[in-house]
Amino acid sequence: MSGAAGSVALVGAGPGDPDLLTVTARRRLDEADVILHDALVTDALLDTVPASADVVDVGKRAAGAGERATQDEINRLLVRLARRGRAVVRLKGGDPYVFGRGGEEAEFLAAAGVDVEVVPGVTSAVAAPAVAGIPVTHRDHASSLTVVTGHEDPTKAESALDWAALADTVAAGGTLVVLMGVGRLPEIVATLREHDLSADTPVAMVEKATWDDESTVTGTLSTIVARATDAGIEPPAVTVVGDVVAVRDRVIDRVRSARTVENARASTGVVLSDGGSR
Amino acid sequence: MSGAAGSVALVGAGPGDPDLLTVTARRRLDEADVILHDALVTDALLDTVPASADVVDVGKRAAGAGERATQDEINRLLVRLARRGRAVVRLKGGDPYVFGRGGEEAEFLAAAGVDVEVVPGVTSAVAAPAVAGIPVTHRDHASSLTVVTGHEDPTKAESALDWAALADTVAAGGTLVVLMGVGRLPEIVATLREHDLSADTPVAMVEKATWDDESTVTGTLSTIVARATDAGIEPPAVTVVGDVVAVRDRVIDRVRSARTVENARASTGVVLSDGGSR
Repeated sequence: MSGAAGSVALVGAGPGDPDLLTVTARRRLDEADVILHDALVTDALLDTVPASADVVDVGKRAAGAGERATQDEINRLLVRLARRGRAVVRLKGGDPYVFGRGGEEAEFLAAAGVDVEVVPGVTSAVAAPAVAGIPVTHRDHASSLTVVTGHEDPTKAESALDWAALADTVAAGGTLVVLMGVGRLPEIVATLREHDLSADTPVAMVEKATWDDESTVTGTLSTIVARATDAGIEPPAVTVVGDVVAVRDRVIDRVRSARTVENARASTGVVLSDGGSR
Repeated sequence: MSGAAGSVALVGAGPGDPDLLTVTARRRLDEADVILHDALVTDALLDTVPASADVVDVGKRAAGAGERATQDEINRLLVRLARRGRAVVRLKGGDPYVFGRGGEEAEFLAAAGVDVEVVPGVTSAVAAPAVAGIPVTHRDHASSLTVVTGHEDPTKAESALDWAALADTVAAGGTLVVLMGVGRLPEIVATLREHDLSADTPVAMVEKATWDDESTVTGTLSTIVARATDAGIEPPAVTVVGDVVAVRDRVIDRVRSARTVENARASTGVVLSDGGSR
């Protein structure tokens, strides 16, 4: 650890499959004294960290009273642990800087004189569609990718998002990805429709991407709310809006995720070249 | 390999640092018979693949005559190699589906009956700003993240992008990331200004993020073209437009990348827990 005030590694956990950690993330977890993780980090991933590490769940559910105080508590805890010279990993689902509040934590730590090692991760905004057979960009379809969260109610006047502009980027062939948008799905769909996005615009929802109980449902702006309800889609899920969703039907019979490939190997007794980490 | 027609692993290489490969990507490279890589994959990363693998550079420079044919050649080569039963890795800088044309390759392979294993990677759109101290989203600033490429000329009428909508998302507090935008930087800046984005809007360019010769320059829409020229910024570089750029000044003295941390450890003789992969 480099300075007297210690350091914290701000690490992206990726979408859930432990093998979608980066090599650096894997190493930091293996060396950690303390791991503070959020609610999106999977049990499958936490099962791979050394027994010697203190694992603390600081996960917060959807915004509510007291959330700010909790974030403040996390910030202070990180500083305290770093100053004790412990090898601290702040582990966040996906990438720490894609709606992970990693930016706030980095600012707090820097202001306290604590070094921050940033270890980017695989963001679910890209990986969840990918494992469901949907490329977020495509030469024939999508010229832009926009990522937002669904925590905010788009029908409220104070929404910080410009939904007219978001609808326009999709109409121009772009892809819109909504993270954590299960609860607000009806409002999001209605708002995009109000801004003249076609009812036929393809939509997919990918629940628990790369987890063992991953599932995907597809439809259009006019059908997705009913289909998601019928399929029992629950958080966390990634919603994809745009023409790229149509690619799924052309490739899904042949596309598989790394986790599926590894599970198939394990069941047929193929030996992994590195001896296998699980 | 699973089917008679073989399979191809479509693998994201991340931004450049070999340790920002995922664990699965590392494993697929270590097991590969043939690796077809594009121009954005670094020498530092290629130095880590086994000597037994055939490494083929199929990198294409910026669009020009004959590019389509070349993509077609890549598609056919992938199918041919897969049918011979070889362990084929198609390795793409960043994530294969973020402007990597992975979607087209997956469709071609699926149509030919070849299985496609999709291994998402760390996208430079997020990682390049991150290692330069810039979170692409921030609770106080950015409510959306939009990613486009700068290969297209935005001043041409046939641009597939809705630049008015892109400017509006930034004006609403969002972040715009332009991949491969060095050559068209003056046109991109002029187009955003024409769509009433403030001249004071912060802009950063991160060249060769996580490579050994990484460099960053910051400015505003009114100053970035001159500053990038003065600094000699060359492709590949990631351009970030939005208020989040201002975070850099508050954290950069304390933020370091994994590569910096590992290099510092190596020079002080700290032993890596896994014996070290380099």
